[in-house]
Amino acid sequence: MYEREHGLNWLCFEAPNGHLSQRTRLSLSSSSTSATTTPIYAQPGGDSIINLARGDPIMFERYWRQMGDKATVVIPGWQYISYFSDVTNICWFLEPEFAKEVVRVHRVVGNAVTEGRHIVVGTGSSQLYLAALFALSPHNASEPISVVSQAPYYSSYPSMTDCLKSGLYKWVGDAQSFNKEGPYIELVTSPNNPDGDVRRSVVNKSEGILVHDLAYYWPQYTPISSPADHEIMLFTVSKSTGHAGMRIGWALVKDQEVARRMTKFIELNTIGVSKDSQLRAAKVLKAVSDSSEDAAGNSEEDESFFEFSYQLMAERWKLLRKAVEHRGSFSLPEFPPAFCTFLNRVSEPQPAFAWMKCEVDIEDCESFLQGHKILTRGGKDFGVSPKYVRISMLDRDDNFNLFVKRLSTIHL
Amino acid sequence: MYEREHGLNWLCFEAPNGHLSQRTRLSLSSSSTSATTTPIYAQPGGDSIINLARGDPIMFERYWRQMGDKATVVIPGWQYISYFSDVTNICWFLEPEFAKEVVRVHRVVGNAVTEGRHIVVGTGSSQLYLAALFALSPHNASEPISVVSQAPYYSSYPSMTDCLKSGLYKWVGDAQSFNKEGPYIELVTSPNNPDGDVRRSVVNKSEGILVHDLAYYWPQYTPISSPADHEIMLFTVSKSTGHAGMRIGWALVKDQEVARRMTKFIELNTIGVSKDSQLRAAKVLKAVSDSSEDAAGNSEEDESFFEFSYQLMAERWKLLRKAVEHRGSFSLPEFPPAFCTFLNRVSEPQPAFAWMKCEVDIEDCESFLQGHKILTRGGKDFGVSPKYVRISMLDRDDNFNLFVKRLSTIHL
Repeated sequence: MYEREHGLNWLCFEAPNGHLSQRTRLSLSSSSTSATTTPIYAQPGGDSIINLARGDPIMFERYWRQMGDKATVVIPGWQYISYFSDVTNICWFLEPEFAKEVVRVHRVVGNAVTEGRHIVVGTGSSQLYLAALFALSPHNASEPISVVSQAPYYSSYPSMTDCLKSGLYKWVGDAQSFNKEGPYIELVTSPNNPDGDVRRSVVNKSEGILVHDLAYYWPQYTPISSPADHEIMLFTVSKSTGHAGMRIGWALVKDQEVARRMTKFIELNTIGVSKDSQLRAAKVLKAVSDSSEDAAGNSEEDESFFEFSYQLMAERWKLLRKAVEHRGSFSLPEFPPAFCTFLNRVSEPQPAFAWMKCEVDIEDCESFLQGHKILTRGGKDFGVSPKYVRISMLDRDDNFNLFVKRLSTIHL
Repeated sequence: MYEREHGLNWLCFEAPNGHLSQRTRLSLSSSSTSATTTPIYAQPGGDSIINLARGDPIMFERYWRQMGDKATVVIPGWQYISYFSDVTNICWFLEPEFAKEVVRVHRVVGNAVTEGRHIVVGTGSSQLYLAALFALSPHNASEPISVVSQAPYYSSYPSMTDCLKSGLYKWVGDAQSFNKEGPYIELVTSPNNPDGDVRRSVVNKSEGILVHDLAYYWPQYTPISSPADHEIMLFTVSKSTGHAGMRIGWALVKDQEVARRMTKFIELNTIGVSKDSQLRAAKVLKAVSDSSEDAAGNSEEDESFFEFSYQLMAERWKLLRKAVEHRGSFSLPEFPPAFCTFLNRVSEPQPAFAWMKCEVDIEDCESFLQGHKILTRGGKDFGVSPKYVRISMLDRDDNFNLFVKRLSTIHL
């Protein structure tokens, strides 16, 4: 159990393509499917391992290359030396320039209310998730508060929540089977990771506190229906602009005391958040907003980031659906198109992950695909059946294309 | 108790000079010394509040200004997008360029052995401290492992250790009174924060695991006697180069499994560490090493960072000692000079904090100084008598000079 939850490859951060990863080796030794019958050591060229288990959003790199210097950041050695950014702000390590661009991008996209909200910046939205748990847990309770989320839920929630065996909060699992009395924290990820569903809270008890993880509520992934307006909303540049290496996320928080306690957690955890990455994130968000506004003015000089990324996602989903429908052995979720207030037209939901189900007589889809040198993350990690796997749609073009090609040749 | 340990101003990150801080207000209301008799609301000009409670190392800004573009970092929008830096490294989010400069600066300064060590990068050394606790705690034990450090100890250790009420580890306090059987973790901070002492472990039981916090083991603060050679050593740019806003620290770790588990913690906590700040830290460390080597070659074009900062610390300590000796109401620790292998001469220990004791009949020195609008951190926060206060020596020139001036006018 410990190895499963806290093992070194829980987040599937393995060796890159072309190398045999530790996770692969571990899985192989305990696999009961065809994985054991197919040698999966890396081969040169097109026969290498395709790792789509992780959600590294490098497919946006192409866009940022073509933007040239527009999102380049320059920081002299003597600037941004202090721990402090703005001591008049509850979140004293929040760079004002970053805060300004957060407000602007939400206004431009129309995906979240920022009026009357406190912004708390975090080292990625992971840290903000932990900060929210710290802020929302009663600190004098006799037992830890329950933390729940509807299955399938983000596979890192259980290990992030329980890794320190906190006496403040405890992962309880699927929100749909939760029926304990008293306070609880419910995580609502919408669109959901792994399956792309638009979500609402499901527990509906009086003492629930909601945290909305809106990492994927951007026009390239889902139609924007209206500005989200919840108590605590989490966002991250990793999925919105594709800059995972920055480790910058932000929370929009209605309650001042919650914002204060989240800030306190980040102070105790890392004494603030990299100023350099906040400055770079400001620059990148500015470029995104600029490109969106330029596009609205019908200028063709600057391609809109969201148009670019929407088209890229659309192409990929089309290719994947074709490969999957062709054989009938797998299925993908279907989503109804809807009007997107940002794109000002009907758009398709095209999640950052494909949640694929094995429709034939194979119990462990992750192991089965491993046998074909395709690394994915299995349903069990998300609290559901191993017939499901989650596949990243955000990898590099060549890797994604190779995956679709290989998937369409699998014989069952 | 909760407010004391988890209150919003534990780390003394209050409002800046010229404003009445929340901490000041809180302390005032419970103060039993002359603080209550002296109005401490901010006055214009030289009568404002001087906040030396925090260790914001902004005095090095001047050096970095005069270095011009030498430590400027430029990052295009399309670079360093991925979560990953080097997947062949245990610490897969460690930027190779940063790792290279860490090894180089330790070789140039001669303050730590890097051969045969794993480097783990962290969001400041705070995160690495927590990562070390996670890595060293037995995860199947019936009770949390004891964490101890000799008093006076770094005031944030207790709250950082206990804020999540972890079942893995627990702050127990002063190492000198620790006599429990079984495994424990001892933190050795050397030179010590707050008092500047050169430290060794004091418990000396068989099941002890040591973590060495060497944030201040640099030539401007203490004579370098030999390369430190311990199991786990923590460093940070905040105190070495003065770039606190980067939030970059590093651990040198002998044991591979410990490095792996520390990496795992950072993965669960923040999924890695800002690449932008790692790149900037690499640039800054390179400038430090270059300036040290140029200085060794007797070139006068580039001032050596450590010579510059040593001289600055020397001036400040001279001023402070003069002000303190002048009145006799306070005392400062005395340190024997010693040969510094880096400076190649006998040098003075000149800690980043002054650990000042009130020698007259005042019980609470922090409150007393607050009454004179000087904010410090009191001995209680460090596990010792309130007759002591810790004073930052790293603030801006004008703030420091104002402090010395005011201190020398205090009548007792």
